[in-house]
Amino acid sequence: MNAPMPLETSLPNWLVRAAENQPDHLAIQCGSTHWSFAELLHQTEQLAYQLATPGIGKGTRVALLAANDLPFVVVVHALMRLGAILVPLNVRLTQAELAWQLEDVQATFLCSDARYGETASQLARELPRLTFLSLISDAQQNVGIADQPLVPAIALSGSLNLNDIQSIMYTSGTTGHPKGVLITYGMLCWGAIGSALTLEHHADDCWLACLPLFHVGGLTILMRSVINGISVNLHEKAAPEGINRAIIEDGVTIISVVAVILQRMLDDLDKHEHGARYPATLRCVLLGGGPAPRPLLERCAARGIPVVQTYGLTESCAQAATLLPGDALRKLGSAGRPLFPVQLRIFDEHQQPVALGQPGVIHLQGPTITPGYDHRPEVTERAFHNGWFSTGDLGYLDEEGYLYVLDRRSDLIISGGENVYPAEIESVLLSHSEVQEAGVCGSDDARWGQVPIAFVRLRTGSTTGSDELLTYATRFLARYKVPQAIYIVPEIPRNSAGKLLRRELARLIPR
Amino acid sequence: MNAPMPLETSLPNWLVRAAENQPDHLAIQCGSTHWSFAELLHQTEQLAYQLATPGIGKGTRVALLAANDLPFVVVVHALMRLGAILVPLNVRLTQAELAWQLEDVQATFLCSDARYGETASQLARELPRLTFLSLISDAQQNVGIADQPLVPAIALSGSLNLNDIQSIMYTSGTTGHPKGVLITYGMLCWGAIGSALTLEHHADDCWLACLPLFHVGGLTILMRSVINGISVNLHEKAAPEGINRAIIEDGVTIISVVAVILQRMLDDLDKHEHGARYPATLRCVLLGGGPAPRPLLERCAARGIPVVQTYGLTESCAQAATLLPGDALRKLGSAGRPLFPVQLRIFDEHQQPVALGQPGVIHLQGPTITPGYDHRPEVTERAFHNGWFSTGDLGYLDEEGYLYVLDRRSDLIISGGENVYPAEIESVLLSHSEVQEAGVCGSDDARWGQVPIAFVRLRTGSTTGSDELLTYATRFLARYKVPQAIYIVPEIPRNSAGKLLRRELARLIPR
Repeated sequence: MNAPMPLETSLPNWLVRAAENQPDHLAIQCGSTHWSFAELLHQTEQLAYQLATPGIGKGTRVALLAANDLPFVVVVHALMRLGAILVPLNVRLTQAELAWQLEDVQATFLCSDARYGETASQLARELPRLTFLSLISDAQQNVGIADQPLVPAIALSGSLNLNDIQSIMYTSGTTGHPKGVLITYGMLCWGAIGSALTLEHHADDCWLACLPLFHVGGLTILMRSVINGISVNLHEKAAPEGINRAIIEDGVTIISVVAVILQRMLDDLDKHEHGARYPATLRCVLLGGGPAPRPLLERCAARGIPVVQTYGLTESCAQAATLLPGDALRKLGSAGRPLFPVQLRIFDEHQQPVALGQPGVIHLQGPTITPGYDHRPEVTERAFHNGWFSTGDLGYLDEEGYLYVLDRRSDLIISGGENVYPAEIESVLLSHSEVQEAGVCGSDDARWGQVPIAFVRLRTGSTTGSDELLTYATRFLARYKVPQAIYIVPEIPRNSAGKLLRRELARLIPR
Repeated sequence: MNAPMPLETSLPNWLVRAAENQPDHLAIQCGSTHWSFAELLHQTEQLAYQLATPGIGKGTRVALLAANDLPFVVVVHALMRLGAILVPLNVRLTQAELAWQLEDVQATFLCSDARYGETASQLARELPRLTFLSLISDAQQNVGIADQPLVPAIALSGSLNLNDIQSIMYTSGTTGHPKGVLITYGMLCWGAIGSALTLEHHADDCWLACLPLFHVGGLTILMRSVINGISVNLHEKAAPEGINRAIIEDGVTIISVVAVILQRMLDDLDKHEHGARYPATLRCVLLGGGPAPRPLLERCAARGIPVVQTYGLTESCAQAATLLPGDALRKLGSAGRPLFPVQLRIFDEHQQPVALGQPGVIHLQGPTITPGYDHRPEVTERAFHNGWFSTGDLGYLDEEGYLYVLDRRSDLIISGGENVYPAEIESVLLSHSEVQEAGVCGSDDARWGQVPIAFVRLRTGSTTGSDELLTYATRFLARYKVPQAIYIVPEIPRNSAGKLLRRELARLIPR
């Protein structure tokens, strides 16, 4: 009787709309280059025409191996105009790992910038399916493809469909074999909306991006910029000096960081001037990438830094839960409440809801959650239960429904039948004044099944010994949580997003 | 190969989510009553249980005849928890008009508050299909249904589906016969998002609602409150004194108005103190309901009132295009650019796009546009062309793509082959210092086909004659646009949303 409902939601292409609405508004600042939305759109369209020439179009899988720089950004938007699927590659992977991923995703094109050109051309020689496209940029920062004519003959898409796939992002691989997560336009859009409703939306917002753009935490900043019509301040590296300078000088209002970067930012800030503070323009320090160590949160609270803890993963298109600024002190250590479009439940191992306060596996549902993994129906099926996506992360909700993330389930140490959460032990070790970084993993043990083992990087020049640290830990931790050994090491293994790699830690245990 | 995409987007119920996230945050202030989101949720759930008892559930069509007061708000949210469809009735309609509409929409329940109880019970006696439910509220403002037990036996829905129908709103009927516009949850949600992205979203926003809640411009404020987690300041009447007091005393940040209300607000402000201004907390005066007279816009600009002109209609769930505050002076009189989810085109009578600057019919597309009219497939079909909804409004886009709304197509006067826009003539008359209100319509004419006729309400005590006004108009208008007659009348016919009723004007022409 009524008109049929449209099953697919179509929206104007976000960059096109941003450039129509605010052509002169700053879209992106990277080094000394400043591009307005109109300029970014122009660059995007030029590149899209070049990419179309060798046959990139709707559904083409295009891998991208490039630094956090303007060419990366232009490729992202150009592929969206062509309806092609972006496969961003982790620049830290080995040649063999990259080749495996390119084969796994069946990419037919590989774009790279000058920095990664040699690696990319070698990969293209190795994999005959792959066409190699070399990104170049001239002295005026114009981004193009080497040896490709600019033929504006095709019509670029001015809209996008929320059910379409925008990219395939391989999970950072802190556990298990990497798999390609399908990222839809809808996930990106609802994520940006949920974020804006939680963090507020101001027309003069400027979001600092120092996380890798090939991870979801970086890529989503580019999307929030064009959806919300706000500026991006892009950094190639998460160097604390450059970040602090941008916050103080460039009007940055929001920054996404992980704990280890935030720690280094504070250390750098301390160097310059005693008691230096960030300006009031910085209204949100979005802290993700794993449970935050309590000492860091307290250090920020003491300095009035507006830390907003967040929990998310590639499969939830970054931010899934966020602690509202007003709750930051009252709920220190919590990742807050789910974003507007997200539903969150804690289930036990039988997929039954647990009581408030009880730990279990965090499950998510909503339009920011991936429809599944690329060509891995069995893995997708295992990840979903009655429409709920199992994150594999352990956590609990307090009596007010605030999420506390404990650990990856795969990182959980079960010692003598007791659950031991590595993050809890790390937090205690990090509260010691001489400890710079800490990582804890489980080690097989004949008597207890598993026991916790800790690795610690000390502050420069420190002479603290592991015995002193063990004594310290014993003051704060139940007997079964105290590490069986604490090793002092020069470096703690992390992935390119700064996340601790606990699997790698286990390999460091002396046999 | 990939997992099937979900065809329907489900979200947590907005009020439930708001009450979970910010239980103590002010949800609504009405008179001396202040309800938090937790209190509003409690009221809603109590009423939902009562409504469920006589059988209101998924898909039930429930008409509501009530004043702009708390019972109206509670019914809206209670029906959403039951999945029932709200049919808000215009309280200004006659008994016969209401009966026609109740029959047309096939409502099975009619809720009314004490004020409209007599009308409603008469309608229920007249229409045997209809069950009458009388809304009561006690001294503590608790809202309930007379003689209905409170049985919390059923499970209330905690989520909603964006494709489902939330309400059926009869168009205000400035032209033609009323028809029921289907309003989906998706329209409301995307409308709130588009509005927040355009107007910014601040956690401490408070939106003043003085437009009738039975019109889309009022109802959407209730939705924006629960979606964005912000407060509503509800007024039963658009009385300028009460509105001005709320703006000055209650921290109102946004208000939705139509021109005639804004005019009265300024007049009232003038009475109190010479040069009185609104506080800086008022950051957005959203002005809709038809093309705004230029003199009013200039009067506001001179006082620093942040007027944001908007264009929308029931079928676009209110706001479709909005002039960004930064463009207000540069584009005076424009309705700005389409909201984030909306696409806008100007087509000629053959559904072909016209050039920039050329007038034509405004067409819209996107998730805020209705899927159609209730049980009127042929009307729905006529309104859509290749997925574009024809608004029936005339307008043009300037060289920067900014929308200028001219008039309803049905109000257009064609005189000697020339298009004459009533709003343009009204704007000139309103710029005369003695004119309070003006309305223009066409009258059949043997020589010119049609000629414009004007009606004017003068300021209290004014002795200006129509000859003087004619002379004045001649100074600003081309010969063919000058009204053939100007009648001075005590009242200009308007609908309950304050929109000018030009059809009614034509009836005032002396024969």
